[in-house]
Amino acid sequence: MASDGFRPLDEKSLVEYLKATPSLAAKLGSQFDKLEIKEVGDGNLNFVYIVIGSSGSLVVKQALPYIRCIGESWPMTKERAYFEATTLQEHGRLCPAHVPEVYHFDREMCLIGMRYIEPPHIILRKGLIAGIEYPLLAEHISEYLARTLFYTSLLYLTTTDHKSAVAKYCGNVELCRLTEQVVFSDPYKVSEYNRWTTPYLDADAEAVREDNILKLEVAQLKSKFCERAQALIHGDLHTGSVMVTPDSTQVIDPEFAFYGPMGFDIGAFIGNLILAYFAQDGHADKGTDRKLYKEWILKTISDTWNLFYRKFTALWDKNKDGPGEAYLPAIYNNPELQLLVQQKYMEDLFHDSLGFGAAKMIRRIVGVAHVEDFESINEASKRADCESKALNFAKTLLKERKKFHNISEVVHAMEHLDK
Amino acid sequence: MASDGFRPLDEKSLVEYLKATPSLAAKLGSQFDKLEIKEVGDGNLNFVYIVIGSSGSLVVKQALPYIRCIGESWPMTKERAYFEATTLQEHGRLCPAHVPEVYHFDREMCLIGMRYIEPPHIILRKGLIAGIEYPLLAEHISEYLARTLFYTSLLYLTTTDHKSAVAKYCGNVELCRLTEQVVFSDPYKVSEYNRWTTPYLDADAEAVREDNILKLEVAQLKSKFCERAQALIHGDLHTGSVMVTPDSTQVIDPEFAFYGPMGFDIGAFIGNLILAYFAQDGHADKGTDRKLYKEWILKTISDTWNLFYRKFTALWDKNKDGPGEAYLPAIYNNPELQLLVQQKYMEDLFHDSLGFGAAKMIRRIVGVAHVEDFESINEASKRADCESKALNFAKTLLKERKKFHNISEVVHAMEHLDK
Ligand SMILES: Nc1ncnc2c1ncn2[C@@H]1O[C@H](COP(=O)(O)OP(=O)(O)O)[C@@H](O)[C@H]1O
Ligand SMILES: Nc1ncnc2c1ncn2[C@@H]1O[C@H](COP(=O)(O)OP(=O)(O)O)[C@@H](O)[C@H]1O
Ligand SMILES: [Mg+2]
Ligand SMILES: [Mg+2]
Ligand SMILES: [Mg+2]
Ligand SMILES: [Mg+2]
Ligand SMILES: [Mg+2]
Repeated sequence: MASDGFRPLDEKSLVEYLKATPSLAAKLGSQFDKLEIKEVGDGNLNFVYIVIGSSGSLVVKQALPYIRCIGESWPMTKERAYFEATTLQEHGRLCPAHVPEVYHFDREMCLIGMRYIEPPHIILRKGLIAGIEYPLLAEHISEYLARTLFYTSLLYLTTTDHKSAVAKYCGNVELCRLTEQVVFSDPYKVSEYNRWTTPYLDADAEAVREDNILKLEVAQLKSKFCERAQALIHGDLHTGSVMVTPDSTQVIDPEFAFYGPMGFDIGAFIGNLILAYFAQDGHADKGTDRKLYKEWILKTISDTWNLFYRKFTALWDKNKDGPGEAYLPAIYNNPELQLLVQQKYMEDLFHDSLGFGAAKMIRRIVGVAHVEDFESINEASKRADCESKALNFAKTLLKERKKFHNISEVVHAMEHLDK
Repeated sequence: MASDGFRPLDEKSLVEYLKATPSLAAKLGSQFDKLEIKEVGDGNLNFVYIVIGSSGSLVVKQALPYIRCIGESWPMTKERAYFEATTLQEHGRLCPAHVPEVYHFDREMCLIGMRYIEPPHIILRKGLIAGIEYPLLAEHISEYLARTLFYTSLLYLTTTDHKSAVAKYCGNVELCRLTEQVVFSDPYKVSEYNRWTTPYLDADAEAVREDNILKLEVAQLKSKFCERAQALIHGDLHTGSVMVTPDSTQVIDPEFAFYGPMGFDIGAFIGNLILAYFAQDGHADKGTDRKLYKEWILKTISDTWNLFYRKFTALWDKNKDGPGEAYLPAIYNNPELQLLVQQKYMEDLFHDSLGFGAAKMIRRIVGVAHVEDFESINEASKRADCESKALNFAKTLLKERKKFHNISEVVHAMEHLDK
């Protein structure tokens, strides 16, 4: 392993690394013996160290050649750190307000040094479990989605720049394959990794594996995921990849990034909000029925899509004479036609987002990796009730996504199922 | 230019090149002073030499850094020869019966040595103009399409192999851009390169530029062309890229190859047969009304799609436990579901093929590059009548492609319009 210049760090060797790396040392001040270092990797894949020095702080993230939460028995290329670093840089350039700055990247060591997103920031998923409202969340995430997706699509890029970026991110194939497996395949077959709240959901899990129409639809989404290089997507934009305060929203962890369908990011975020919604009844005990909070989640779902729609089409209008070659101004030269093509584009994107969002929900209930929203509901029967509603909603969404015309119809369907 | 090892050859320097290249020299025999050499490049882009020696023959094709039929004022990467050579090799491996063997490839010289497809082979387009029936054409082309498209798609390849091939062919971006321009853009706007049979088609050409629904639909096809890496497609599969005898069908000239939508190849071929059909009335004079020949073209269109359907799904069935990761056997494990997913896949592919075919027809009537099928009709008003029917049919096909359920409905619509 040393042969390729890679060493897994621990808290001690990390100090030596920091000392020897000027761009990181400069952030921390000179007293290296007084550094405060804490490994906080609560994620599934990597090691994350918070480093606090006398005059500043940073985070160091290192990828090891396997999946952390499973161990060396599930190998995974550490090259993912390269795609995470370049995506943080690219998305950070396009949307600096919502992406942590990269201070340093070491490709051999698969190591990223980046801004420490300080407390009171917490992981959004934890905030949603705690019932905390984030009034700017939809505004911020829609901004992040609109800017990162628009500017890396053919609406803005030339074919030449687009194809060269597509080629580069084809290199992140191992992470794409992992998504293919855990999102689009395992939940629909018997797999040693699958789990669910047993015995309550045994029949539901089996029903997923026996549902021909569901499998037909998920195959089409999988094809789109594998074949359609629409924009540089984050690739893992669930509520555990977002850190928040009431004023600030920061997107981390784009190691699954590649040129894929935009709806996969939008759907991941909205799908995880829907999971949070259906989990609320499981958190409703002590003093609050979470009724108002559920309304806030619904509003945030609506606002996220509607603001995204507005911002994305505004970027399109603003850049319609820009470098993008998809809709040449000499052809799409009248306002009526411009409106028509945008409506069609956004309608397709909406249906993609619902489909991918639903697929991401299903896999969190009957697949390998579950979400704390449900896992933190101790009483199994209560958890199963929540999960079962979410699963049923996801199945409907996946199969009937093209019958929904706007996000408020989706929200109404959620309320209806929740009655 | 010499700096990168590239020299444009002429008939004289070609002889020296052949002498110095064992893999080519070996095909020809030793009497180099008696070689018969003829430049026959009737195509638009490159130089093609037929070389006949004392004990064998071959063809040499060289790409120059511009588009031959326009000249040095329209530069075009000569790297296209690399993508043509690798595609000939890859498609040749998958379907040796219908692709000429590559004897030699010289990347610096952008030069391919390949099998001479000997007389009585002629270019299919010329045969269609002459009214010659090719009873095996549909059988052969459907075989070529089914094998090359199936085996380079995710129905057969692993994600890993697919993404690595996609990345490589992203390098053929200049040729993709040329297609984007001449097929999906120029016909829908005022462009110096466009031409049509004037004054007869002036209003028709303008109507294409003013048709909002047509432009909406063509934008979606263009996105699919740019974004969807479905299989290694030929990229230029018109009837001028096929050489035929009644017994043999050979596909040449895949310099536009890349990972794109399968429907672009199927559509190119069928669309050019439809052009041939509507051109027949212009060739009907001397002694024959071409009525029976038109019926043969219609039958060939039907047979091409129907045989393709049968062969492609047969390959799918045969390889359903193979390396392909799109439809895992553990999920798509019952015959009913297998049928369902195939029907959906083929339905989408059918509509893609009709859309791309229609776009290729339109561009041949109001865009830069026309087809001999129409160009050889001397009388302008008669030519315009033929072109106008073809154009109207193409517009309907493009806009209403999803209303067609099978190829016989397409054929009936052609007959109906032709009355
Ligand atoms: N820049 C950062 N600032 C503060 N905390 C961070 C930062 N990056 C990661 N973390 C913490 O580390 C955890 C794991 O990081 P993440 O990038 O999601 O790793 P993984 O790829 O293993 O999921 C996050 O949930 C968060 O708590
Ligand atoms: N292998 C071959 N055997 C015989 N003739 C060939 C062969 N390759 C090309 N030709 C002839 O040369 C012409 C131009 O070749 P083509 O590959 O289509 O070039 P371009 O890329 O310029 O269109 C063809 O129409 C055909 O007549
Ligand atoms: Mg994470
Ligand atoms: Mg991660
Ligand atoms: Mg040609
Ligand atoms: Mg062509
Ligand atoms: Mg050519």
